[in-house]
Amino acid sequence: MLNREYDQVCSLARSLEILGERWTLLVIRDVFYGKRRFDAIQEDLGVARNVLSSRLARLVDEGILEKRAYQERPVRYEYFLTEKGIDLWPTMITLMHWGDRYVADHGPPVVIHHKECDGEVDDRGYCGRCGERLTARDAYAQYGPGAAGRGPVGRAVTAAG
Amino acid sequence: MLNREYDQVCSLARSLEILGERWTLLVIRDVFYGKRRFDAIQEDLGVARNVLSSRLARLVDEGILEKRAYQERPVRYEYFLTEKGIDLWPTMITLMHWGDRYVADHGPPVVIHHKECDGEVDDRGYCGRCGERLTARDAYAQYGPGAAGRGPVGRAVTAAG
Repeated sequence: MLNREYDQVCSLARSLEILGERWTLLVIRDVFYGKRRFDAIQEDLGVARNVLSSRLARLVDEGILEKRAYQERPVRYEYFLTEKGIDLWPTMITLMHWGDRYVADHGPPVVIHHKECDGEVDDRGYCGRCGERLTARDAYAQYGPGAAGRGPVGRAVTAAG
Repeated sequence: MLNREYDQVCSLARSLEILGERWTLLVIRDVFYGKRRFDAIQEDLGVARNVLSSRLARLVDEGILEKRAYQERPVRYEYFLTEKGIDLWPTMITLMHWGDRYVADHGPPVVIHHKECDGEVDDRGYCGRCGERLTARDAYAQYGPGAAGRGPVGRAVTAAG
């Protein structure tokens, strides 16, 4: 159910009603990188546990993430992107590139590549080498020159990263 | 100056430090649509005046908007997008399309067109008719089927809209 905070007939406004909350897009980013478990996301973001719980519940309610139990007694869940969630990839890519350009002092912390040819993905989600129009499933992430100790340049950004 | 709320070496996180505040992206949207004056933006968004003042000041500080006086005594300003602001257009487009797809019950409230050939702009900011890769300067906005009384389909979305 939408929180109609903005009360605007505008797809940008309605999207922000879901995604504009602090942490929400970073939670989605972490799931894109393969961080699927509460503790992994919480540790990566350093966000309060109650806030993360609330964001994850909202994203499940909105059909952007789905949770699947990986353990019983006590039950523990992993979070996966739905199609609706995966379709946020172009927005992530455009915003990441904007940040690389304007707010990354030491170069891109992360560089997205095309699986098939290893070309770099551009700011519209196209492969800079072969020109293909990509989706999240066609891409992988590596640390870039601005990673600043998070990982060596070229290492995959993954759940363990 | 960045508010390092997220403390993350990530261009998405750093972008959200600037843009993730409530209202900020909608203020930028309004300036894209040609609403340049405080009162026009305030009326359109229905946001508290002190909140809008704070958002506009932040966007000027960050170099996303610049203000120019259009009147002296008392001095009054209009807001314009800088290059850094204009470069947010692909992010707006991808997020607007995501909203059209998933949260617009009655079709797109706004449709973006390519000035040169009137083709519809797709979710990557390319023209769906001629295939050209577009920027904000190449595009115009019209009300779509989901506009719900804000304006007739096909009418330009402008400062007066």
